[in-house]
Amino acid sequence: MKIYEFAQAPNCRRVRMFLAEKGIKMEYVHVDIGKGENLAEDYRRRDPNAKVPVLELDDGSHIAESVAIQRYFEEMHPEPPLFGRDAKEKALVEMWTRRGDFNMMFNVGMCFQHTTGFFSDRMRVFPEFGEESGKKAVQFFSVLDQHLEENRYLVGDYFSVADIGMLCSLDFGKAVKLRPDPAQYPNLVRWREELNARPSASA
Amino acid sequence: MKIYEFAQAPNCRRVRMFLAEKGIKMEYVHVDIGKGENLAEDYRRRDPNAKVPVLELDDGSHIAESVAIQRYFEEMHPEPPLFGRDAKEKALVEMWTRRGDFNMMFNVGMCFQHTTGFFSDRMRVFPEFGEESGKKAVQFFSVLDQHLEENRYLVGDYFSVADIGMLCSLDFGKAVKLRPDPAQYPNLVRWREELNARPSASA
Repeated sequence: MKIYEFAQAPNCRRVRMFLAEKGIKMEYVHVDIGKGENLAEDYRRRDPNAKVPVLELDDGSHIAESVAIQRYFEEMHPEPPLFGRDAKEKALVEMWTRRGDFNMMFNVGMCFQHTTGFFSDRMRVFPEFGEESGKKAVQFFSVLDQHLEENRYLVGDYFSVADIGMLCSLDFGKAVKLRPDPAQYPNLVRWREELNARPSASA
Repeated sequence: MKIYEFAQAPNCRRVRMFLAEKGIKMEYVHVDIGKGENLAEDYRRRDPNAKVPVLELDDGSHIAESVAIQRYFEEMHPEPPLFGRDAKEKALVEMWTRRGDFNMMFNVGMCFQHTTGFFSDRMRVFPEFGEESGKKAVQFFSVLDQHLEENRYLVGDYFSVADIGMLCSLDFGKAVKLRPDPAQYPNLVRWREELNARPSASA
């Protein structure tokens, strides 16, 4: 079993941090997405979307998408549970995971792709759309800060995969200078610092 | 228990179809997002992101995001299972749900938002980015068509919430004239027609 990944990518960090919380050791294979190694035909046999990370199982089959990989290991190694412990908690973890993907990762990612030109050899860039996406990420800082005023984690007192996803998406914002100001977003920064102090955060 | 929704919206259809497959009856409250009823302050107490659908539980708390609502009911009413039956199947359902969100719903949605001007009273539009997103959705038709050549559903012979999500995202493409040509994408169209023949598809 091994994971193909590009360690700097935020979705790869999501999986690394999750596995560290579970205490699962993993073999990693470096794929240089900057050089486009993921676009090669043999890589597309692992994932037709040519993304990282991809989990290769011992039977040779593949699971792509960070949260799909996390969910596989949640099922195989249930302790500690990171996707929720009852119906409502599982739904709230899902809700915050998706908010993290659509309101944070998406906006930060679009800002990165459309303003830095990192992938401009393989996509059309719209710099103004990228800047607008960055503004939307910052608008979401307010939603998060207000929520975290009354909640230690995204789902109350329960640390979950939603926190991991949101943290990795938020921290990726540094690449485009999107960082919450502690004076303006004290609860968000408190939450971020608490999470980044976990050993898994630097896995 | 009730769901706030705008029936024409693809993510609301996802929930309706899912509940129909489970045989769950629901009370729906119409929210006219065209008129911006979701942007009112009292609606934002249900979802700070002001989206539809939102599930209101009998204790007055809320669960937003279509897949989070689906997951709540999967836990409360496990039969028939629609999120997978073992670890690998659950992971593959998650993978295809996310591919549906990122490669289909996202691209169709961006095409819709940035080329039709439906929400131009509340967002900046970038028509060229919208057109480019539409092209990416069409590129993904090929990935799907190839996959569905050897698979009845997205996850082999197992009908799942991933099919529901992908179908609703794909069908939403009609709003921006993105429809797979049967001659070019025969497997994708065969799959779409089989799904749309289920009674739940028109729930």
